[in-house]
Amino acid sequence: MTRTDAHPMWLPDEALRPLGERRVLVAAGIDDPVVATVVAEVRAATARWGGAVTVASPDASLTGDEVRGHDVVLALVPSSTAPDEPTRALADDVPTASGSFGVLREGATTTVLGLDSPGLLYGLHHLVRAGAAAAEGDTPLTWYAPTNDVRMLDHWDNVDVHPVMGQVERGYAGGSIFYADGRVREDLSRVASYGRLLGSVGINAVAINNVNVHRTEARLLTDGLPDVARIADLFRPHGIRVHLSVSFAAPMTVGGLPTSDPLDPDVQAWWAARVADVYDAVPDFGGFVVKADSEGQPGPFAYGRDHADGANLLARALKPFGGTVFWRAFVYDHKQDWRDRSTDRARAAHDHFSPLDGRFDDNVVLQVKYGPTDFQTREPVSPVIAAMPRTRLAVELQVTQEYTGQQKHAVWLGPQWSEILRFPLSGDGPDGGRPGGRTVADVAAGTAGPPDARRAGLVAVSNVGDDAFWTGHPLAQANLYTFARLAWDPSADPQTLLDEWIGLTFPDADPVVRETLHRVLDDSWRTYEDYTAPLGVGFMVRPGHHYGPDVDGYEYTPWGTYHFADRDGIGVDRTRATGTGFTGQFPAPWRDAYEDVTTCPDELLLFFHHVPWSHVLHSGVSVAQHVYDTHWEGAARTVENAAAWDAIAGQVPADLHARVAERLAEQVRSAHEWRDQLRTYVFRHSGIPDATGRTVY
Amino acid sequence: MTRTDAHPMWLPDEALRPLGERRVLVAAGIDDPVVATVVAEVRAATARWGGAVTVASPDASLTGDEVRGHDVVLALVPSSTAPDEPTRALADDVPTASGSFGVLREGATTTVLGLDSPGLLYGLHHLVRAGAAAAEGDTPLTWYAPTNDVRMLDHWDNVDVHPVMGQVERGYAGGSIFYADGRVREDLSRVASYGRLLGSVGINAVAINNVNVHRTEARLLTDGLPDVARIADLFRPHGIRVHLSVSFAAPMTVGGLPTSDPLDPDVQAWWAARVADVYDAVPDFGGFVVKADSEGQPGPFAYGRDHADGANLLARALKPFGGTVFWRAFVYDHKQDWRDRSTDRARAAHDHFSPLDGRFDDNVVLQVKYGPTDFQTREPVSPVIAAMPRTRLAVELQVTQEYTGQQKHAVWLGPQWSEILRFPLSGDGPDGGRPGGRTVADVAAGTAGPPDARRAGLVAVSNVGDDAFWTGHPLAQANLYTFARLAWDPSADPQTLLDEWIGLTFPDADPVVRETLHRVLDDSWRTYEDYTAPLGVGFMVRPGHHYGPDVDGYEYTPWGTYHFADRDGIGVDRTRATGTGFTGQFPAPWRDAYEDVTTCPDELLLFFHHVPWSHVLHSGVSVAQHVYDTHWEGAARTVENAAAWDAIAGQVPADLHARVAERLAEQVRSAHEWRDQLRTYVFRHSGIPDATGRTVY
Repeated sequence: MTRTDAHPMWLPDEALRPLGERRVLVAAGIDDPVVATVVAEVRAATARWGGAVTVASPDASLTGDEVRGHDVVLALVPSSTAPDEPTRALADDVPTASGSFGVLREGATTTVLGLDSPGLLYGLHHLVRAGAAAAEGDTPLTWYAPTNDVRMLDHWDNVDVHPVMGQVERGYAGGSIFYADGRVREDLSRVASYGRLLGSVGINAVAINNVNVHRTEARLLTDGLPDVARIADLFRPHGIRVHLSVSFAAPMTVGGLPTSDPLDPDVQAWWAARVADVYDAVPDFGGFVVKADSEGQPGPFAYGRDHADGANLLARALKPFGGTVFWRAFVYDHKQDWRDRSTDRARAAHDHFSPLDGRFDDNVVLQVKYGPTDFQTREPVSPVIAAMPRTRLAVELQVTQEYTGQQKHAVWLGPQWSEILRFPLSGDGPDGGRPGGRTVADVAAGTAGPPDARRAGLVAVSNVGDDAFWTGHPLAQANLYTFARLAWDPSADPQTLLDEWIGLTFPDADPVVRETLHRVLDDSWRTYEDYTAPLGVGFMVRPGHHYGPDVDGYEYTPWGTYHFADRDGIGVDRTRATGTGFTGQFPAPWRDAYEDVTTCPDELLLFFHHVPWSHVLHSGVSVAQHVYDTHWEGAARTVENAAAWDAIAGQVPADLHARVAERLAEQVRSAHEWRDQLRTYVFRHSGIPDATGRTVY
Repeated sequence: MTRTDAHPMWLPDEALRPLGERRVLVAAGIDDPVVATVVAEVRAATARWGGAVTVASPDASLTGDEVRGHDVVLALVPSSTAPDEPTRALADDVPTASGSFGVLREGATTTVLGLDSPGLLYGLHHLVRAGAAAAEGDTPLTWYAPTNDVRMLDHWDNVDVHPVMGQVERGYAGGSIFYADGRVREDLSRVASYGRLLGSVGINAVAINNVNVHRTEARLLTDGLPDVARIADLFRPHGIRVHLSVSFAAPMTVGGLPTSDPLDPDVQAWWAARVADVYDAVPDFGGFVVKADSEGQPGPFAYGRDHADGANLLARALKPFGGTVFWRAFVYDHKQDWRDRSTDRARAAHDHFSPLDGRFDDNVVLQVKYGPTDFQTREPVSPVIAAMPRTRLAVELQVTQEYTGQQKHAVWLGPQWSEILRFPLSGDGPDGGRPGGRTVADVAAGTAGPPDARRAGLVAVSNVGDDAFWTGHPLAQANLYTFARLAWDPSADPQTLLDEWIGLTFPDADPVVRETLHRVLDDSWRTYEDYTAPLGVGFMVRPGHHYGPDVDGYEYTPWGTYHFADRDGIGVDRTRATGTGFTGQFPAPWRDAYEDVTTCPDELLLFFHHVPWSHVLHSGVSVAQHVYDTHWEGAARTVENAAAWDAIAGQVPADLHARVAERLAEQVRSAHEWRDQLRTYVFRHSGIPDATGRTVY
């Protein structure tokens, strides 16, 4: 195992102790790089903790006794002939998805059967997560399969430091683990560690450069291939395929052609040649990520072509090699006129993409942000997710906390993501989905489409950097962990995942410490919502860097992100009756539930309706009083969290405790700034006093 | 003369034609570098335009006939023995200020008498400005003396490009003419041209680096001295002394001492040694500019010392060499809490400095911004100017248009500066000063103080860069010209100076073109005020770069720049009765005129008072309607100006016309953005409709 001085995240040595104390048999060919990783993990753990390892050729005929002489057996499901015992239970219920594995415990032996080598790796880490419990009792063979084929992290890392966006765009954890000084790092040991961590939780795809592709980054596709291959070599042993973000204009800017028109044969030939070069260097290359015709990035519109033309151009170049295009649906007019109330940014993705359903090749994945605007603390789910049954569709989340505290605030996003993934796109009414109705997670997994639908999954923007704790705020590691685990199983209970993360990361923690960690993170997303983003209003942040409050900061900008507050009220009328008609992009029942102010959920009220400050919510208080209350209470909870953290000083590593304490102090400061600015803003506009008499400045 | 490809500003070859066609006698020793400049100017002009030049030793005994054989005679007033004729009129009314000159015309000869070599240079350019009229009629000997000893331009140029502020802080005209690539330029020909231009309008001091002194810039004082000497060599022939901005922490950061305490003998010795080194390299070095304990710059407060201690430390080091300290009074708390309404940034400079009056050494000049906040479009004059009779005080203006359109908007600041300079600090009432009462200009010139008061003058932040037109917006050259001419004579009529500038810069322009230039600039400051800054409110700009509207942009920041708008009203209560008491810093009658909402001038109403939106101004309209009207009308005038400019296409140089047209188009766009945002903001807050029915978005 590669070792660095960085924090081990959820794989401290102690986490592998229960496995490392056992006699382990690995029966699989170590020519496979992922099997080699499994063997290396077991070797390192048993060496450290006193166990033993036997590596048997998969062709070796092991007797039942030989197998039973081990505490743990890790074996691949044979592709043709079955060895003696382990296969006896194979039956029709064996999953087919890559990465699946089965676990059984009989007598004193726990057996893990990997459907393939990634399955073996994931099965190994399933045992690690189970810890000592993996060696207790008997369990029949149980199969585990990933719900999603695509379990991907995008890195918005720049090779050259961008003059405004820096080394990692929207990165809050130091520099890039991939790049420094304008080139790929010589020492990629952090990448190797990162690959091990991601592989342990089932991530199988990584895009290694920013979707905003600048000059130097565009050449990763050409001059940079040897370095891309070095990075791919470090991810491959963990079952992870490398992807590149590419510029749609690359045929011109890199290739010197006079056009990037997707229907131009020279352009098609150029991409085909580039893709062939890429696969020469990286035989298991995953594919491309593309942000086109969005926020200034080039795209097919320049040639009168549409997004399907653009995506299929790249898809056809990748097709012979098994590669995939991740085409982002984040397309809108970023030079909007704030005076124009008829244009609605929330509508844009649906307006652009829903007419194209069925036009995308089957190796195109449309990558759709979870909400219609941009990774806000609270948005409705994007109606695009419900609108493209004949398109492979991945839902994009943001692990890096651009709008959710920037890893200065402890904000665990598990509940947000779980709520999104479980959202019933069709159902009986606003209070819940129809049993069996398709959810966001169903669409992403591909289980909601026609039977032959290709599967996709979840993509998220990573939150790691070269920070010693990887994520700036050490507790932000929980977001990376939770995303990966939800990508494997979107139906998982996020609270359980949180405790799983706590148990792995703090193996020595006593119950009080675990409870404190749980308490600080548990409700932290809603706490953050409380002190920042009332009732579905977003973008009340400082323009540009997006940290801290600026209620009107985006109100008169070209970005299409307004709340229209005045002395009478606040909110965006997106109804069909009197507004932008955005509600009409949703399927029933949501198109009607959101349309009607009496059925619209409180937490999205101002996203869909412009209402008076005195409007009474379902909760029974006015909009103004809701702001007064939630912002006060949310800020107060940050104080409680900081105090709880102080109380466990000495019970977690000192450097980690200090770092978290410093961040919690900033969170307290910032939360009170949010509290006071929002409360003052509402009072200055509404003139309504806080009924509780608390100070409004 | 050094020639570059840059625009010649107000010294095109044609401007020197009337002089160049004549027979010119220069009777002065060309060992003096400024005299050598005079001779070189005359040589170049006569060579180009067919005249002739004779250079006579000042010791040569010229007969009357010899003198009368020339059309123009340029001579120095002899310091001891007087030659034959030129001195006959010397009498008690000869001024004593360096740079003074006399002009007489008798028969066919125009004679210029320089009191010293700068006087000769200024006299030469007096003839250039007079043009053909200088050779008409007879005029008795008339003396011209600069009102101000200090006529200075500060450059906020960084040697290293600052990551946020760039090469030139608040510069809107490209890079620095002094620095590129992290060092002083090899090719300083633009500096030589600049020196010639400044010398022609009487500027006699330049500070060559930013008052925010960063790491590299701090070493101009040590390692950089050979380069400083190269720059000084280029300014010296134009009568200009070079100054450096220095860091108060330099004894530590550059010198390695453990302290910068002004009372520490080692610190004093360190500065004395540095100053001696500087004068070794630059014998006519002017002195230091210091921003201390301001916006993060180090200062004497760290040692429990005050600004007099700090300034005198440097003054005493400079004293033996005749150097001056320019100590900036721009000191305030830039980490204020917006919740705290009792702290008033406008009070800060007076609170800090007025108790120190009389404590500054006589080679300290306190450099005071014209207003109490920061170079806003409209502020009252700073009460500090009236409060320090025993202190040399220079008034600081801003030629670079940080808050006045950033050289994208045509905003000629002559009327603003003239209004400030003529402002009667004591007088009979708000409508005008007492005849003979001291004005801001009087204080700056030193004529308002005790008879033995040392004189100071005016300082401004320059607006030039390496742009081909020097100033980005070609018409912004008028600001540089006007500042220099007002520094010479603050009582000059700015409209006359504008026409003077037009005549020199556009020598071939017909009356329509001149009238168009005049019209575009004439009222442009008030037009800018109309569409940006109503009734004395400032800082409604985008935080950071300060361009374009953001009404609440600074409202909740630490910068102390608030307007407190709410649904009921707007403005800052700075009265003694109910507000911050800032009005009490003014002498009578202003302390009372500003205190009373009924006597406070409309244009400063919101600077001094928080009033309802419905408050009726002296002008007869409400505050809300005033915003509606002025912003509408101001924006409309920018359209008229752009149209007027279009109409003279082909009548001014094409490149200049195109550049101005491009900027006027941006001004039109931006003015309408200001108009619409401000009108919408007021309507959203006040609920008062625009009585004229014009669209409010």
